[in-house]
Amino acid sequence: MEKNYKLTIAYKGTDYSGWQVQPCQRTVQEIVEETFKSMFKSEIKLSASGRTDAGVHALAQVANFRSEVKIPPEKLVQALNTKLPGDIRIKDCSIMDEEFHSRYSAIGKTYLYYIYNSRINSPFWKDFSYMVPYSLDFDKMILAAEGFKGEHNFLGFMSTGSSVKDTVRTILDIKLQKHDNMIIMEITGNGFLYNMVRIIAGTLIDIGRGRISAEDIKEIIDSKDRNRGGHTAKAKGLFLKRVYYKEEEIFQCTSKKTLDTLGSLL
Amino acid sequence: MEKNYKLTIAYKGTDYSGWQVQPCQRTVQEIVEETFKSMFKSEIKLSASGRTDAGVHALAQVANFRSEVKIPPEKLVQALNTKLPGDIRIKDCSIMDEEFHSRYSAIGKTYLYYIYNSRINSPFWKDFSYMVPYSLDFDKMILAAEGFKGEHNFLGFMSTGSSVKDTVRTILDIKLQKHDNMIIMEITGNGFLYNMVRIIAGTLIDIGRGRISAEDIKEIIDSKDRNRGGHTAKAKGLFLKRVYYKEEEIFQCTSKKTLDTLGSLL
Repeated sequence: MEKNYKLTIAYKGTDYSGWQVQPCQRTVQEIVEETFKSMFKSEIKLSASGRTDAGVHALAQVANFRSEVKIPPEKLVQALNTKLPGDIRIKDCSIMDEEFHSRYSAIGKTYLYYIYNSRINSPFWKDFSYMVPYSLDFDKMILAAEGFKGEHNFLGFMSTGSSVKDTVRTILDIKLQKHDNMIIMEITGNGFLYNMVRIIAGTLIDIGRGRISAEDIKEIIDSKDRNRGGHTAKAKGLFLKRVYYKEEEIFQCTSKKTLDTLGSLL
Repeated sequence: MEKNYKLTIAYKGTDYSGWQVQPCQRTVQEIVEETFKSMFKSEIKLSASGRTDAGVHALAQVANFRSEVKIPPEKLVQALNTKLPGDIRIKDCSIMDEEFHSRYSAIGKTYLYYIYNSRINSPFWKDFSYMVPYSLDFDKMILAAEGFKGEHNFLGFMSTGSSVKDTVRTILDIKLQKHDNMIIMEITGNGFLYNMVRIIAGTLIDIGRGRISAEDIKEIIDSKDRNRGGHTAKAKGLFLKRVYYKEEEIFQCTSKKTLDTLGSLL
């Protein structure tokens, strides 16, 4: 009998053309599906909680698949990790009920965005952050971040190329933390539009630089005009941190006052 | 007139055969020297505070060179960074007096060692930490770490292949910190023997695993026998964090109670 397997997957997106299978591209989905096929002689089709773009990382992407292959979840984790490249790791596997779908069952997500604010890039963070060489007014960025909280029509914070109709989303929490040269944004919402996190990050950077006024943020959101907000921050600073399927998990995460800066990346 | 330039260099050691120039190997020293030559049409010879092995990283290696090329230090930083590969960054440059020598003037160093204690490796930390899949008794590791403090003959904590005669060194400080799966060791001493930090890290890991008793650490040091200590922990977990040229700088660093876990890598 077919079972519904849920995988939690971490990946460094640097050397991939994003999550989703595309012709003639190396994608995370394809590598995991091919690895499964080569090991278990059976094809699977992974459904992820959402796509990630080229260069975007995931600490815990969730994807499910149905298969008749009988293998205990913990064995599946071990087996796949022996064959997968080191920049993709299966963190967890569990068998879910019939109804579970990594995307349709999801009720929220948390993303991290790393801004390396320095004139000299870091050999260690270069693939994991967006280097901004201009001086940034952190207090203004914090002030502006508050404006994103709550339910808004985020049409102006969506890149073209998306067919989504309903552009209303709720930002449940947004935290900014500064640590030496690094500014980290953690944002939790019930869902995000295409490039929404990167446009919010870019807008906060432009506010920090003084190109956009922090006080205008609500008006900019209300304008629903993509030209009013800031630039789209680079893919490599973005991490999908967590996908939620239960209300209490979101509450636990958003009720934390500070960010666990190192732990966030573990 | 010839000037004595001091460079502070960060590098990710993963794709290099260590610091020092070697025939037919790609080393950090060679890349920096070649980059300088290609830009300023003048040869330099870098003297570093010490070699680092293949795979070892540096947050702030110090190297000096003498040159008649006249270029303001801040311009030199900018110029070199435009040509250097992204895994090597010049963080700082200053002109020193005649006597300064990055190795002979150094009075101490701090290293960091990252232990990723998990059965599943991290796509983000795999090049920057040593994955230990066994459960580790952190309290025993802390207890044992205390035993390394002070002046000892560390002959038993040196790999063969070194011609050093005086094997007495002073450990000024050793801190261990646990952060989710990550155990970080920060060790400061007036100098270190070949592989000494990696053997101390390996010994602490073997103590955490229960293969060596924490109570035996002083006796093991006193034995001066390499076979009594633990294994040599992998190169990729090791970072040269800082080289000291002034007493007060060491004091500032060692007097801090806790480690700045993310900041340490910035």
